Order: sequence, then structure tokens, then C-alpha cells
Amino acid sequence: MTEIACPLCQPKNENVLWRDAMLRIIRVDDLDYPGFCRVILNRHVKEMTDLSPDERARLMQAVFVVEDALRAVMHPAKVNLAALGNQVPHLHWHVIPRFADDAHFPDPVWAPARRAGQAHRVDDARLVQFIARHLTAD
Amino acid sequence: MTEIACPLCQPKNENVLWRDAMLRIIRVDDLDYPGFCRVILNRHVKEMTDLSPDERARLMQAVFVVEDALRAVMHPAKVNLAALGNQVPHLHWHVIPRFADDAHFPDPVWAPARRAGQAHRVDDARLVQFIARHLTAD
Repeated sequence: MTEIACPLCQPKNENVLWRDAMLRIIRVDDLDYPGFCRVILNRHVKEMTDLSPDERARLMQAVFVVEDALRAVMHPAKVNLAALGNQVPHLHWHVIPRFADDAHFPDPVWAPARRAGQAHRVDDARLVQFIARHLTAD
Repeated sequence: MTEIACPLCQPKNENVLWRDAMLRIIRVDDLDYPGFCRVILNRHVKEMTDLSPDERARLMQAVFVVEDALRAVMHPAKVNLAALGNQVPHLHWHVIPRFADDAHFPDPVWAPARRAGQAHRVDDARLVQFIARHLTAD
């Protein structure tokens, strides 16, 4: 995939909670998972092992700050972390707060839904505040 | 989940490629995904943010060495990384080499299968050798 055709290189309508020179953190506003966040590398890179160890560490630090923010604000039963990128091979981490009454629990959110799940809402301002307090800008 | 009831605290028939004081790396021998590996923390801990920053870094280092090993040995189209743990809340990372002709590509392996996929085989000895050369024992 060329950078020109990549939707993460040419983002549209992202709800950005944090942005710096290396990465951005967005809330996806998924219908079933309002707390679903993504940590997206700004550069078009495919795999974690294409990054330097320092870059990997910084990207993971951001992922873990988002996990911490979601735990602090939403108190999920579990947090799911995933870097897949089969459709869009541009590094992005899914950070998904999971609840026992959500649409797929305890299955992954990519499995068939088990029920019309409860969508747990979250306040952007609280996430933004937590992230800004715990993540140092690049 | 108590440790006594946890299948990752009481493992059975694991195909272990690497083991040290902190973690073990196994090959799952999944029918559709013979290269599917897991990096499992030995201790019963639920979330990455329950670990210290040093522990997180070490666990991720192991995940990235496995990604590198799978890339070197199998040349997948993409590597998928995920820490879910909704069913077994004991930290374990899925490291899954993906191919354009596998059962689910480009969907996640947890989605409904798209086809009777090609199962790409891998030689344990080559993975073991790569991991041993790149990972320092804890």
C-alpha cells in the first residue's frame, strides 16, 4: 500500500485525544464500543519490528497510557490490545475496554456478536486529561 | 479467576520454544495457523499496566523477538499481535503470522473464516534457534 492510498496517512474526521511528532491517539466512537481508542504512528511503517527499539518503546508507552486512562475512567472488566494491520498495513494499536455485558464478551470484538450489547460511554475530556498528565510529548 | 483454576498457571502439553524465570514462548500448533505463537507471562497477572515498566518492556521484547523470528523464518504478509485475555485473564500475547491465502485474511483470525485457507508450516528448530540468539534469559 502506498502512502497516498493509505487512510492513516490521509486521515479524515479523527477524534484526536493526543497528538505529537511521533503518534496520535484517537477515540474511534465505535457504536458498540464508545471507549475504543487507537494509537496511530504518524509515519507509514508496517510492523513493530520495522521500528527502532526506542521507537517501539515510545509507541508502547502511549498504548499503556491509554490502557491506564481507560481503566481509570471506565473500569472495564478487561482491556484488549491488538496491532493487526492486515487491511491497513500502517502501524496502529487498538485499545479496547471490554465489559461482561458488551456485544462480544468474552470473545474478541472481531468475532460474531453474542448479544445486543451494552455500549459503555466515556467522557473525552477525562481521557484527554489523563493522557496529558501521563504521556510526555515527543 | 483464581490461579488454581487458570489454565496458564497449570499448563498442559505446551510446545515450549523458550522458557525463563519471567515468561515462556510456545507454538500453538493451530490447525489453520501452524506458526501461531504465544508469549505467556509465568506469573498470574491480568493487564500490562499491572506490570512495572521494566517488566512490560521485557515482555514486549520477547513479543518482538517472536515477531522477528516469524518474519525471518516464514516471511508472512503481516504479523498480528494481540493481548486479549477476556477468557483467561492471565497475560499472554498472541503472535500470528498472516498470509494472503490463509483462512481469514485480511480479517482477524477471530472473525468468521473466508475460505479453506492454506496452513503455512514452520520448523520449530529454526524458531528456537532464532529466539535463543536474540533473547537474553531473565
